[in-house]
Amino acid sequence: MSFERKNIAQMRGYIPGEQSVVEGVIKLNTNENPYPASPLVADTLAGIQVGDLRRYPLPTADQFRKTAAQIHQLDPLNIIPTNGGDELLRLAITTFVDEKETITVTKPSYSLYPILTKIQNCSLKEISLSQNFGLPNNFTDLIKKTNAKMCILVNPHAPTGSLLTMSFINELAESFPGVLVIDEAYVDFVDPSEKYNCIPLVKKHNNLLLLRTLSKGYSLAGLRFGYGIADPSLIEPMMSKTRDSYNTDYVSQKLATAALLSQDYAKNTWDKIRWSRQDLMRRLADLGLTPFPSQTNFLLTQVPEEVDASTLYNQLKQKNIFVRYFNEESLRDKIRISIGSKKENDVLISSIKDILGK
Amino acid sequence: MSFERKNIAQMRGYIPGEQSVVEGVIKLNTNENPYPASPLVADTLAGIQVGDLRRYPLPTADQFRKTAAQIHQLDPLNIIPTNGGDELLRLAITTFVDEKETITVTKPSYSLYPILTKIQNCSLKEISLSQNFGLPNNFTDLIKKTNAKMCILVNPHAPTGSLLTMSFINELAESFPGVLVIDEAYVDFVDPSEKYNCIPLVKKHNNLLLLRTLSKGYSLAGLRFGYGIADPSLIEPMMSKTRDSYNTDYVSQKLATAALLSQDYAKNTWDKIRWSRQDLMRRLADLGLTPFPSQTNFLLTQVPEEVDASTLYNQLKQKNIFVRYFNEESLRDKIRISIGSKKENDVLISSIKDILGK
Repeated sequence: MSFERKNIAQMRGYIPGEQSVVEGVIKLNTNENPYPASPLVADTLAGIQVGDLRRYPLPTADQFRKTAAQIHQLDPLNIIPTNGGDELLRLAITTFVDEKETITVTKPSYSLYPILTKIQNCSLKEISLSQNFGLPNNFTDLIKKTNAKMCILVNPHAPTGSLLTMSFINELAESFPGVLVIDEAYVDFVDPSEKYNCIPLVKKHNNLLLLRTLSKGYSLAGLRFGYGIADPSLIEPMMSKTRDSYNTDYVSQKLATAALLSQDYAKNTWDKIRWSRQDLMRRLADLGLTPFPSQTNFLLTQVPEEVDASTLYNQLKQKNIFVRYFNEESLRDKIRISIGSKKENDVLISSIKDILGK
Repeated sequence: MSFERKNIAQMRGYIPGEQSVVEGVIKLNTNENPYPASPLVADTLAGIQVGDLRRYPLPTADQFRKTAAQIHQLDPLNIIPTNGGDELLRLAITTFVDEKETITVTKPSYSLYPILTKIQNCSLKEISLSQNFGLPNNFTDLIKKTNAKMCILVNPHAPTGSLLTMSFINELAESFPGVLVIDEAYVDFVDPSEKYNCIPLVKKHNNLLLLRTLSKGYSLAGLRFGYGIADPSLIEPMMSKTRDSYNTDYVSQKLATAALLSQDYAKNTWDKIRWSRQDLMRRLADLGLTPFPSQTNFLLTQVPEEVDASTLYNQLKQKNIFVRYFNEESLRDKIRISIGSKKENDVLISSIKDILGK
């Protein structure tokens, strides 16, 4: 006999990308930043003593909230620190969506959304993207028809890399009657020329919740630190009711604060990754692959006709290069490649060349 | 208009004990260990480089699971690492208790249990302890009548310090048809002469889930690391479905593993705390307070008739000594004091002497 709730017994869990412990692997499968976090983060880490860990951390991570608020020109009450961005997604659902109510996402999208929906025993409505992974033209109408209590969009989009404009998000927040979660996990890699910045919109729309993470843009995936940005009326119930009261630890609060204070350093890594993105895109195209335009630190790319995606994925793995393959209909002839360091990208390109016999 | 679910809108959140940032405060209010974590933990911390945090941690914290399994003579499949013990409680409820189903706890008990119950929109049944904070004689019958899907008991008990025997837990697990969670947050401080050890019981009862934390016994409250011990059939759905997939971070996995490997060092701190517990008990009694016998690292004590508990709490606070006062009927003339270092205990005693004019 199983003690599991029926909805849990019937579901399958999220399967994270492989995290190899083997040295020397080129890991381009989970969108980590190829550059380490800033010298200030390193100094802060070096300054932490074991005795500092004896006491509970500040449950409200005040210093981080204050720092994030200053950087985004908001109030600390607009900020909720979380144990990775994933925790914010879970908290938002726990706080705002009842069992049986509907959550709308796009298909494809971050595959964790449907799983969190199942855990809360909610109803999932997936709106398929068009052939080129754009939103359908009548998306705003479609979404209203789902009668959803919450809509979660990842922007820039994963796993395709495309970007919805700020004015589209603005209009959607205006017309959508539920909570609109914009998962901005990859926002740091958006080209500044796009002038994409949804943060001021939280002052205008009390149903808009933005997700940020330090995993990608700030090279701290190992730390588990994310945060939400929204009107205080959305933040407060998650901060004071549904969150585990000590959800972020002493070390992560300190390092996350130091990371946000290192804006110049971080921006420099984003510039380098954008440059590599363009470079890698061109070189993949030269080899007959068809990468989609990306505003993130990864490229989703169609593989050439002569090889199928799972074969390319496996052959790269044999060469100690990990990329991501999704066993999903709309992504079947594609692989997703995280932007690595220049050297890693070079090895990737020459390995693909080898595999394709070019 | 609020977007909160009705059950969330109607509830109040957990209020953690004050975490002062002021230097020089004697903090005896949240049961931290007065001694720092082991030299091995310190060395492990010193060895972590910022570049180690660039990648995601191992989602399953394999090394920690293996170490905990070895120490407890179990299999890694019996272990789930969590972001503090609080996360395990939440996960257990999310995984095993449906909305509207009943969770049974005792009153008083850890005040987080009723809050987690409300978040999941479950029904709470509280069974009152007797005058001296023992379980009522007919507890096993009472609990069956609640028709509960889950029962959560903290053992040794918080906030009183009393201990249920292993044979009682064994019988309860046998007769209770739901999931029995035994929150052993304070188990490291139990006198070895009690011969209390529920771990072998998980091989016998597939409905028994034990909670452990590194916050108290291993001096790592700032780290947020706990774990569950149970039959693999209880662990697996929490590990692979309901848990955030990267729930514990790189630093905490490393340090928690080092802490468990430092058994001799940790046991020495537990011995010292047990000695201080007896000493403090005697000295409080000499001042006219009436502490309850305790198997934990805190003492719940009745205050003398000439002062009320909230006054004593406030006057100690004015002297920069934090203890815990619960504004709750059954605890109204009592305060809870964490066992500090010898020096802290001395200052506490002389301050109480001052306040009582003795």
